[in-house]
Amino acid sequence: MGLTLGELAVRFGCELRGDPAVIVERVGTLAEAGPGELAFLANPQYRSLLAGTRATAVVLDATNAAACPVAALVHSNPYARYAHIAAILHPQAPPAAGIDARALVDRGARVAASASVGPGAIIGPRSVIGERAEIGPGCVIGADVQVGADCRLHARVTLESGTVLGARVCLQSGAVVGSDGFGFAREGAGWTKVPQLGRVRIGDDVEIGANTTIDRGAIGDTVIDAGVKLDNQIQVAHNVQIGEHTVIAACTGISGSTRIGARCMIAGAVGIVGHLDICDDVVVTGLSMVSHSISMPGVYSGGIPAAPAALWRRVVGRFKRLDALAGRVTRLERAMPRSNPGPKPDE
Amino acid sequence: MGLTLGELAVRFGCELRGDPAVIVERVGTLAEAGPGELAFLANPQYRSLLAGTRATAVVLDATNAAACPVAALVHSNPYARYAHIAAILHPQAPPAAGIDARALVDRGARVAASASVGPGAIIGPRSVIGERAEIGPGCVIGADVQVGADCRLHARVTLESGTVLGARVCLQSGAVVGSDGFGFAREGAGWTKVPQLGRVRIGDDVEIGANTTIDRGAIGDTVIDAGVKLDNQIQVAHNVQIGEHTVIAACTGISGSTRIGARCMIAGAVGIVGHLDICDDVVVTGLSMVSHSISMPGVYSGGIPAAPAALWRRVVGRFKRLDALAGRVTRLERAMPRSNPGPKPDE
Amino acid sequence: MGLTLGELAVRFGCELRGDPAVIVERVGTLAEAGPGELAFLANPQYRSLLAGTRATAVVLDATNAAACPVAALVHSNPYARYAHIAAILHPQAPPAAGIDARALVDRGARVAASASVGPGAIIGPRSVIGERAEIGPGCVIGADVQVGADCRLHARVTLESGTVLGARVCLQSGAVVGSDGFGFAREGAGWTKVPQLGRVRIGDDVEIGANTTIDRGAIGDTVIDAGVKLDNQIQVAHNVQIGEHTVIAACTGISGSTRIGARCMIAGAVGIVGHLDICDDVVVTGLSMVSHSISMPGVYSGGIPAAPAALWRRVVGRFKRLDALAGRVTRLERAMPRSNPGPKPDE
Repeated sequence: MGLTLGELAVRFGCELRGDPAVIVERVGTLAEAGPGELAFLANPQYRSLLAGTRATAVVLDATNAAACPVAALVHSNPYARYAHIAAILHPQAPPAAGIDARALVDRGARVAASASVGPGAIIGPRSVIGERAEIGPGCVIGADVQVGADCRLHARVTLESGTVLGARVCLQSGAVVGSDGFGFAREGAGWTKVPQLGRVRIGDDVEIGANTTIDRGAIGDTVIDAGVKLDNQIQVAHNVQIGEHTVIAACTGISGSTRIGARCMIAGAVGIVGHLDICDDVVVTGLSMVSHSISMPGVYSGGIPAAPAALWRRVVGRFKRLDALAGRVTRLERAMPRSNPGPKPDE
Repeated sequence: MGLTLGELAVRFGCELRGDPAVIVERVGTLAEAGPGELAFLANPQYRSLLAGTRATAVVLDATNAAACPVAALVHSNPYARYAHIAAILHPQAPPAAGIDARALVDRGARVAASASVGPGAIIGPRSVIGERAEIGPGCVIGADVQVGADCRLHARVTLESGTVLGARVCLQSGAVVGSDGFGFAREGAGWTKVPQLGRVRIGDDVEIGANTTIDRGAIGDTVIDAGVKLDNQIQVAHNVQIGEHTVIAACTGISGSTRIGARCMIAGAVGIVGHLDICDDVVVTGLSMVSHSISMPGVYSGGIPAAPAALWRRVVGRFKRLDALAGRVTRLERAMPRSNPGPKPDE
Repeated sequence: MGLTLGELAVRFGCELRGDPAVIVERVGTLAEAGPGELAFLANPQYRSLLAGTRATAVVLDATNAAACPVAALVHSNPYARYAHIAAILHPQAPPAAGIDARALVDRGARVAASASVGPGAIIGPRSVIGERAEIGPGCVIGADVQVGADCRLHARVTLESGTVLGARVCLQSGAVVGSDGFGFAREGAGWTKVPQLGRVRIGDDVEIGANTTIDRGAIGDTVIDAGVKLDNQIQVAHNVQIGEHTVIAACTGISGSTRIGARCMIAGAVGIVGHLDICDDVVVTGLSMVSHSISMPGVYSGGIPAAPAALWRRVVGRFKRLDALAGRVTRLERAMPRSNPGPKPDE
């Protein structure tokens, strides 16, 4: 479906520099878009591509508008404007409402008439599927689960018993919500399983990535607040709480009972120890180990960039002997013959 | 179902300080439990909550009993006692025995009459499902698989052909057991797949977390001994062996042919290199890289806690130049005019 | 099925040292193989096992042949020769061609007559399944998917809409291909989803491990070139490109829009930042963080081996104060009374 630049400018509150009658049909990248396609510029890393673009129009901010060789839709938040326009230009046809004949829905479940349940999906007793929700093929929904309106479960999602989803929650394929937390008490030579009796409660507008796992609480619930976005292969342990609008990138793991505040941004492959309290507005960069609570907003890091292996081996060797190196410096300071101000104690 | 404190004390071998006729109905946390609820205190981090608890009774050890403002069930291992009591107070109704009409069971499979096979579950030829085992909805069990008595497979678990489970093995949703190991031989420009011919053998009382993957052996088997507990999203490569009662937290990966001893505790997001031998009773803290065999029991670490990003950048910069810093110290030592004891060689 | 050593030598181009009429029936490890079994020696770590082997024959290279106490099949690439021989000795019976009665195939899908579709598999509209392809039980294939000839999908694989697989692609259980990329634009207090409109295109002879996830592109496609081998639980974000014959070990994550060259070898649990360019023939060792583009072939490292915890704590403490230690060295250099050559600036 095509739309004129004039329509887009009005509808999405952009300033248009160009012919309002020109039509765009679809989106494309700055580098590859051609006639009839709309591109965007948000990441400064790609600014050099602007001059050569063959897109029909570009969504960008005012600082880049002058350099745009084609029609421009100017907005202070071009990435979000692009997101809305792309959704309009590329509408996803919702599946037809109704329960596929090959779905397995318990008689005691309630599925809204406007909802869609795909082939092979399984819905357990007393579960409730809200208006316009889409349950993808092969999903398994246990007993007593609540799925809010307009949720979308891609293929093979598991919601274990008691899980509660707000409205517009999107789960990618293979996600598991409500698995047992990892709770064992040492007893004799082995380990006794601690019953995991809580649930998982997920707020509105949450996204959960492919093969991400969220454990149910041990006693109380694991809670994901509204607007949280979780990427693929994230592990959320029992009784974790994640505050509103926090985003977490792939492969990060959060240990049990840790609370993460609102509006945090946690990068990929971060490990967060259990029983911590991370305040609002914390940014953690990739591959960091967070082993203490954080009470001050700000950026925290713990990853060390890779280096050529020969250099790395030498540096790691030195690292292992850092204590000795510090000792040598202390001895030098003590031996220094004159005008030695002296080190601060064990700097 | 409620039980009196007297019954619980007798049944679980606790010393009761309080009225034996009082009834508890369910469990709760120290902070949130109310009348009729039983809490526990095991982690010293939560000791400060004891004074304010409104639970009807608390399971705790003798050192904390005096400070307990309500009835106390006193035991030297309160967490394990709590686990047993919680299982009694919150019994999980097993699913009805029998094969769901919508399960797909091969004619050549044998399923015990007391076992339960959920809707959409698939069981391959010659596989054997033991007494009272629960095969959850959407599970896929290949050919020649043995599932012991009282196993529980949650939803969408895959057991590839030849997998052997002992008794009482619990697999959370999405776990994959028996996938091909990652074996390729370099040949010409590319890689030739090495047939993965072994199986996975899992002992009694093992727990396997959601979306955890365990590869089959290349020639011999991958072996998980009795009592091992694996959290979510763990990767176990081909021909790994894990000894009895070892516990491993989420997101840890173990490379091929490594042997891990008994009673080890491996924390989350640890990476263990292949072809190593880790002895019994080793503890590895989170985010460590284990790149050499370990022959001494003890605690090993490799993670570096995150720090504010500005500090981190400076420290990482210094780290990359550690070799140069050590060289400067050596030059200073050589230049030191007098009474220089001399460094030990290349400390 | 047994084969004589003579047949194997001729067929696989090995030099035979031993009786060509002797038959081997199956493969085994150097340590455990017995009569009728064929072992191999490729990893020098296992060379010491050669003298004691009870295998009937061993595949090895010329440098080890003299020390072989039994018949030897000698080849410069013994591991690849072993792989081919093992595939012959242990043929995998392909499933019978045809669509299982309990599969759910859309009327608009096209499945080759020689292909096999397992029970509970779901195939969406307009999807095409090539000759001899095997679609395992419980797989979910969306709309408009192309599966090339001789592909093998194990159990419960998801291919989201639009995914394209070349020939002979092998996907282990639980893999997800074509999930939405993690794209959100900050807007107001929260995040607006950016439509993920691209596909995933996978070349010939690619292997994808259990529970690995590969996101679709945001605008263009995510592209995995021919011959790439991906282990379990790898995360490939949107618009990543991976060049021919690159192999990546388990638990590694690659962030969005990064391009990895051909013939790279990425070890396990590596994290690669987004929007990077990694050239051909790069080796990255385990647990490294790759945070900058790499334009020179070679080996890169970023992991630090674990150490006993007491030592580790001291070293990490020193690490956090490296800046101060460097300052102390600088002060010493300045205070040095004579013949001080002076440090290079801020070494």
